[in-house]
Amino acid sequence: MRLAYAASPNLILFASFIAQDLTTMTNSFFPPIRTLMGPGPSDVSPRVLGALGRPTIGHLDPLFVTLMDEIKGLLQYVFQTENALTLPVSAPGSAGMEACFVNLVSPGDTVIVCQNGVFGGRMKENVERCAATAIMVQDEWGQPVDPEKVREAFKSNPKASLLAFVHAETSTGTRSDAETLCAIARENGALSIVDTVTSLGGIELKVDDWGADAVYSGSQKCLSCVPGISPVTFSPRAVERIQNRTHKVQSWFLDMQLVMGYWGGDSKRAYHHTAPVNDLYALHESLVMLQEEGLESAFQRHRRNHEALVAGLEAMGLAMAVSPEWRLPQLNSVLIPEGIDDASVRSSLLNDFNLEIGAGLGALAGRTWRIGLMGYASNTANVIACLSALEAVLAGQGYSLPTGAGIDAARQQLAA
Amino acid sequence: MRLAYAASPNLILFASFIAQDLTTMTNSFFPPIRTLMGPGPSDVSPRVLGALGRPTIGHLDPLFVTLMDEIKGLLQYVFQTENALTLPVSAPGSAGMEACFVNLVSPGDTVIVCQNGVFGGRMKENVERCAATAIMVQDEWGQPVDPEKVREAFKSNPKASLLAFVHAETSTGTRSDAETLCAIARENGALSIVDTVTSLGGIELKVDDWGADAVYSGSQKCLSCVPGISPVTFSPRAVERIQNRTHKVQSWFLDMQLVMGYWGGDSKRAYHHTAPVNDLYALHESLVMLQEEGLESAFQRHRRNHEALVAGLEAMGLAMAVSPEWRLPQLNSVLIPEGIDDASVRSSLLNDFNLEIGAGLGALAGRTWRIGLMGYASNTANVIACLSALEAVLAGQGYSLPTGAGIDAARQQLAA
Repeated sequence: MRLAYAASPNLILFASFIAQDLTTMTNSFFPPIRTLMGPGPSDVSPRVLGALGRPTIGHLDPLFVTLMDEIKGLLQYVFQTENALTLPVSAPGSAGMEACFVNLVSPGDTVIVCQNGVFGGRMKENVERCAATAIMVQDEWGQPVDPEKVREAFKSNPKASLLAFVHAETSTGTRSDAETLCAIARENGALSIVDTVTSLGGIELKVDDWGADAVYSGSQKCLSCVPGISPVTFSPRAVERIQNRTHKVQSWFLDMQLVMGYWGGDSKRAYHHTAPVNDLYALHESLVMLQEEGLESAFQRHRRNHEALVAGLEAMGLAMAVSPEWRLPQLNSVLIPEGIDDASVRSSLLNDFNLEIGAGLGALAGRTWRIGLMGYASNTANVIACLSALEAVLAGQGYSLPTGAGIDAARQQLAA
Repeated sequence: MRLAYAASPNLILFASFIAQDLTTMTNSFFPPIRTLMGPGPSDVSPRVLGALGRPTIGHLDPLFVTLMDEIKGLLQYVFQTENALTLPVSAPGSAGMEACFVNLVSPGDTVIVCQNGVFGGRMKENVERCAATAIMVQDEWGQPVDPEKVREAFKSNPKASLLAFVHAETSTGTRSDAETLCAIARENGALSIVDTVTSLGGIELKVDDWGADAVYSGSQKCLSCVPGISPVTFSPRAVERIQNRTHKVQSWFLDMQLVMGYWGGDSKRAYHHTAPVNDLYALHESLVMLQEEGLESAFQRHRRNHEALVAGLEAMGLAMAVSPEWRLPQLNSVLIPEGIDDASVRSSLLNDFNLEIGAGLGALAGRTWRIGLMGYASNTANVIACLSALEAVLAGQGYSLPTGAGIDAARQQLAA
């Protein structure tokens, strides 16, 4: 006989029942303590984990509605926008991307999509599933989007109503010039959809100043919240296009006119879906922390730790995959040296050092590692720990490097 | 000067920066301790909240992949199915509903949709946004779906390829005969889509025995997990229809062929989206608890507490809104007595007793309360606390009732 539901006040009533005969009983799961220096999720602060585990309240509770309002205000701050339609989609970044496309694209539209990594390809999928045409602007993986090519694409496709691009390509660690690209869209009478999944909170992002129209991000990168939530913001021009749609948004769950009724405005909230209450506690706390630090300070911290990591890696003889101007401080792509086995290095870092770094993705699989220094994980302790572990693992694979060179160079850079 | 990022090892580096000047600084959020006896979210066990707050690991970490496999197995148990395609969608129940529709409906299809509450109407929206036709079978709110009407609908629409209905209508607290309805679908060569958001874990649900084809649920009802996750399961017949689609699924995020590559099978996991790691810790723990108790014991616990609550409510002179045969033990619809102010009762329960019960929804707004006894919240302490608080609040509104009658009746019922 198995004791049933140990935590329930009803224990006594049910202890006499015999639990269903199960072939396998599953135990509780206790994760190891990893240091997350991959492409996300990044290390989550104990403050955020603490907020996450607080008691659940109802999603229509007046106190929860207050929390929702605060989250909107905090997101406006980190997006640097006054957009009223600024909120967290109740699903991961992929759903945030889809929310931007299904609300702004109608069947028959032409959308210019820039691809210089994995996520441009995903944007193309989104456009085509909206029964629209994607005009692809291709750049090499690891290079930024070339604004000249985008101008050419608009010349060849004057009816294009949208430009979509990735601000910070997670698959390659490359920044593109979002300000210029948004301006090109506006000059051509088009709206812009900007993927800021990896940029938000890590590098400068000025939604209003740059005139970006639909912007989505993720909770698990430089916000250092748990994964599962996608902050989005829509400009008044984007809202106008949504309101003037003649074709219903194909997703009920992501229809911003319905979501607005739940998240929005002064009037009574209309039930749409049940918000992920505890995830929003966590998002709120991560945004409060970012507000406490200040955006500019956070950017400088990311920059400083990035420079230390790069100094260390280069002192170890490793080469960065992206040119300095376009490197993301929060996601560092490193070329894997000749003769080094990608998978066994990552596996040894994980198993022997509890350190996660990322593999290359798509065209860069097996050719790069991606070392994240995102949000809470962007700190000097992680820089030093990573260099130290990498040195040990590479040495174990016969890679020749002077002992301690990486750490010394990083410390010198930090002291500079 | 504001001290930046107190929890960061980088504190010293950044304490000298002056944080951006902000008009309003937002503080951390500390929720009150509520007792959640509405239509969901329900009370979350401390065990589940503890699991939720454990340190985040990477979503491609081999240990996380093990957790994913365990969750699939546990979901098969609670759904009572051997369906291989059984997994939690990384978004709320509304997205689980949409996942079933966008994967099984193609443009031009005819779908019979049963409506006896709010959620049948949402199904219609989903069908129409898939460019298909919804044939509505209407029943009164608070009544079960009438199988005869469904048979008639199939006679009038022999080409209908799907039947969609709600097993446990959250808006009314009404059960429908899912077994019979699934059989009618099969007899007519159609697949069934079944909403089990409120039934899973609370009342009998036998996906395989009943031959249900696409079934979705929510984490925040009788599983007593935090809101934000939607368990789904697809029968081999449903999988076959998905694989034979000629029209791409309109949602990239919810495309089960892609999701399967991430969650599925023996081969290497293909990155699709970033799973909500911590939410899945919590879901896993809630399922482990349900497995420990055993499904049958959980159903009996729900039944027993329901009977006690009903005995108490009736002793207080209140009337149930749904006939005994079709009542959901986990969600009790009560008629609001004449002269009693709906909103002020609920508000007093919330503010004075930290007790949340649900309002009526749609056609039943202002006419019923919905008292949940779901999952972890289905316990005798909650039954007694709810009757006691309701007695006090109703008496305060001048409702005449004998003191303690509700509690006495509930205790007698529990002792029976």
